[in-house]
Amino acid sequence: MIRAIMHGCNGHMGQVITGLAAADEEIEIVAGIDLSDHIKNTYPVFSSLEACDVEADVIIDFCSAKAIDGLIEYSVKKRIPVVVCTTGLSEEQVGRIREASAYVAVLKSANMSLGINMLLKLLKEAALTLAPAGFDMEIVERHHNQKVDAPSGTALALADSMNEALDNAYSYKYDRSQERAKRSKTEIGISAVRGGNIVGEHEVIFAGTDEVIEFKHTAYSKAVFAKGAIEAAKFLAGKPAGFYDMSDVIG
Amino acid sequence: MIRAIMHGCNGHMGQVITGLAAADEEIEIVAGIDLSDHIKNTYPVFSSLEACDVEADVIIDFCSAKAIDGLIEYSVKKRIPVVVCTTGLSEEQVGRIREASAYVAVLKSANMSLGINMLLKLLKEAALTLAPAGFDMEIVERHHNQKVDAPSGTALALADSMNEALDNAYSYKYDRSQERAKRSKTEIGISAVRGGNIVGEHEVIFAGTDEVIEFKHTAYSKAVFAKGAIEAAKFLAGKPAGFYDMSDVIG
Amino acid sequence: MIRAIMHGCNGHMGQVITGLAAADEEIEIVAGIDLSDHIKNTYPVFSSLEACDVEADVIIDFCSAKAIDGLIEYSVKKRIPVVVCTTGLSEEQVGRIREASAYVAVLKSANMSLGINMLLKLLKEAALTLAPAGFDMEIVERHHNQKVDAPSGTALALADSMNEALDNAYSYKYDRSQERAKRSKTEIGISAVRGGNIVGEHEVIFAGTDEVIEFKHTAYSKAVFAKGAIEAAKFLAGKPAGFYDMSDVIG
Amino acid sequence: MIRAIMHGCNGHMGQVITGLAAADEEIEIVAGIDLSDHIKNTYPVFSSLEACDVEADVIIDFCSAKAIDGLIEYSVKKRIPVVVCTTGLSEEQVGRIREASAYVAVLKSANMSLGINMLLKLLKEAALTLAPAGFDMEIVERHHNQKVDAPSGTALALADSMNEALDNAYSYKYDRSQERAKRSKTEIGISAVRGGNIVGEHEVIFAGTDEVIEFKHTAYSKAVFAKGAIEAAKFLAGKPAGFYDMSDVIG
Repeated sequence: MIRAIMHGCNGHMGQVITGLAAADEEIEIVAGIDLSDHIKNTYPVFSSLEACDVEADVIIDFCSAKAIDGLIEYSVKKRIPVVVCTTGLSEEQVGRIREASAYVAVLKSANMSLGINMLLKLLKEAALTLAPAGFDMEIVERHHNQKVDAPSGTALALADSMNEALDNAYSYKYDRSQERAKRSKTEIGISAVRGGNIVGEHEVIFAGTDEVIEFKHTAYSKAVFAKGAIEAAKFLAGKPAGFYDMSDVIG
Repeated sequence: MIRAIMHGCNGHMGQVITGLAAADEEIEIVAGIDLSDHIKNTYPVFSSLEACDVEADVIIDFCSAKAIDGLIEYSVKKRIPVVVCTTGLSEEQVGRIREASAYVAVLKSANMSLGINMLLKLLKEAALTLAPAGFDMEIVERHHNQKVDAPSGTALALADSMNEALDNAYSYKYDRSQERAKRSKTEIGISAVRGGNIVGEHEVIFAGTDEVIEFKHTAYSKAVFAKGAIEAAKFLAGKPAGFYDMSDVIG
Repeated sequence: MIRAIMHGCNGHMGQVITGLAAADEEIEIVAGIDLSDHIKNTYPVFSSLEACDVEADVIIDFCSAKAIDGLIEYSVKKRIPVVVCTTGLSEEQVGRIREASAYVAVLKSANMSLGINMLLKLLKEAALTLAPAGFDMEIVERHHNQKVDAPSGTALALADSMNEALDNAYSYKYDRSQERAKRSKTEIGISAVRGGNIVGEHEVIFAGTDEVIEFKHTAYSKAVFAKGAIEAAKFLAGKPAGFYDMSDVIG
Repeated sequence: MIRAIMHGCNGHMGQVITGLAAADEEIEIVAGIDLSDHIKNTYPVFSSLEACDVEADVIIDFCSAKAIDGLIEYSVKKRIPVVVCTTGLSEEQVGRIREASAYVAVLKSANMSLGINMLLKLLKEAALTLAPAGFDMEIVERHHNQKVDAPSGTALALADSMNEALDNAYSYKYDRSQERAKRSKTEIGISAVRGGNIVGEHEVIFAGTDEVIEFKHTAYSKAVFAKGAIEAAKFLAGKPAGFYDMSDVIG
């Protein structure tokens, strides 16, 4: 049984991870860290890492950018691998995480969802085979009506993944309504649908002669990031020092 | 058994209709009209309507704009209802068809596909109920990589259908990548995907709170217009003078 | 502003309705009824309807079968229309609700989701047009891996809706793997997919010659029933005595 | 430019390949073999391989089982690699092809479609990652209403591909309507939809906690096999003796 410390255990994501871990036979949360203590957990909760004297194999972090520096220091000092899920870090912080990875195993990824990371990998392979065979690539993403940016960061990551596999020969096309012209072979069309409270859907389309291949990811809640964090923690426990990301977890 | 004259019987669509009619127990092609005579049909073929002495209940037309005037004259003179599928008519020709409908039943539609016409009708009802309940409306269409216009005329017709049901209060949005802003409640997003040799797909999305309703039409070949023409002919035979379209066929 | 009493306000669905109503400009919860008082609401909460002295235009019920008899009595006595969302009622209870509808407006439906009820209605029309035109009808539903029954009750309701429109001439087919035979024209295939924690998806397919029309409903959470209940309440307030269901709300 | 002999050039698939090759800058059909000579091709057509004196880098075969033995003999004698697309071969014939591959490059596959073969490969990887992470696997396939077998051979091949990657620990489930039971973790559900004249659609679903990943292949015509054959020929020209299949083409 892998023993994990949950850093930020009483936040929304910390509680989701707590619930998922309780149902998982391979990992156990043995301690939590949180300033807030309004929630009853099955494990002891400490107000800071320094106060925590429980032995652990890995730390899962879903906290705030302010708490990252202390976390990294502790992880290096104790040589406990850490899965960093907090987003919005400064460049300095990311730099410090990179430095820390010389001493301890650290995992950090743009998107913690297992499914999206699986897609990022498979799309590279698909693009390498299908694009030279004449298939056109298009992406359609759907998100809720409160989202202000379009297309989504994940849609761009998916496009980048295919583009990198193809020597970055492609440009991205967001709108076709302003011209009368055939599609260029070296473009990836990216469309953004907005409506309701859709959590997030990404569809990648390879359209060839008389056949179409589609890859689709649907997130039903932000719990997919929690699930990814747990798989990452299982992977990272016991690993040598180094910088890892979700593509390593997927293998 | 309804007896039909196939006007333009040796063209591509004329032959598709011939094939479908042969397998249909309610309608029979009793004569064809075509200048070309390179194809063997099971029915007699005449080089012009004037030369045709076979009795019929309805004429199906899939010909060329040049032949329309003679067709309409003949239809009025003989009082035989006519399904006009030829596109690209001049305004004068459309005007003459309207005048002819005072004397004989005439059917003409922007899109002969049964499925699209069914959708046009159902979408009005769906929009009337779902839009006031807060559902957002979006359309995604997919066509082959040789199509120069975007979005497709059919996508616009679908949007118009919903918009008309809602007092034309909505505007159409083709691109969200150039701004950082939440979706407006009174817009219909329309996205165009281009790739391979996709014949035509239209997806209409109603996205609400925690539920999404989708209507999707996929055309696998242009034969869908043939099928629609046959249903229109069955409907039109025996009808009194008047101007009809596919929404009447659908009931 | 319509004034609603929330019967069962501190249960899961009662709280979801409370949240949705707070964001709705046409309806306001003016009182709640619940035995439990562990939640702070913005409206007064009474332990029973008898204790409630707040004036209201409609009652929304998401409670338990035990509390239904008292609810119906109160609704009749006060002549306040009531939306009954509680399921698992006995036949006697349903009978009493029917009787009550002679004196007050009552609404009760198998499925409170606006989208599913919209589909039930549109599918009747679609089936009436498309089935005689040779389209085959199939349903695919997807639910989580804990669901023990297959196909879902809603899938059967969708099939029934089409079948009723077609004089109940169709039988349902759940498995094709045990025979080598072409599909019969008078069957509706119903397939059940099970996996993960999918809340509920229903896809109705009309497959014709070279065209396919699909209707799809996706529920992302049980909140869709809350949304339907609120729309039902807005509809029911001020209505004369009678028995209503969601098809009336949809119009 | 790769020079190809088209074996069975005047059959339906031979002509489709002829058309696709004409538009391809990397391959050229330099000779055809066919007993029938009713079609005018841009290349010389011979009634038998023995009569053909044109030099070539590869042979593409879409012929009949009867002509296979002569084809293999010729391919070995001339050391010209051969793509065998003819199906319905006897075991003896397949054995002879295997033997021939000691002397010349031979490629043969259950399904020539590039897309399906791509999926077969990617699904192995996806299954290896997602199944241990708790994702449930399901397949839904759609075919026309004249198909007598269900599920399709390709659906079974897709299931086998995932199952092999998982030590064949899974069984296949075709019907859930006859029992009240939760889904087993070690089953792959396979559903068959039949309707209209759908050429072939295969959808593989990985359903996890709050996320679903789908892989979908749609064939719009049998031309996808022609496309696959051309890619296979480009791959095979110049290759050393050996037995290859489409997974080698995909790389």
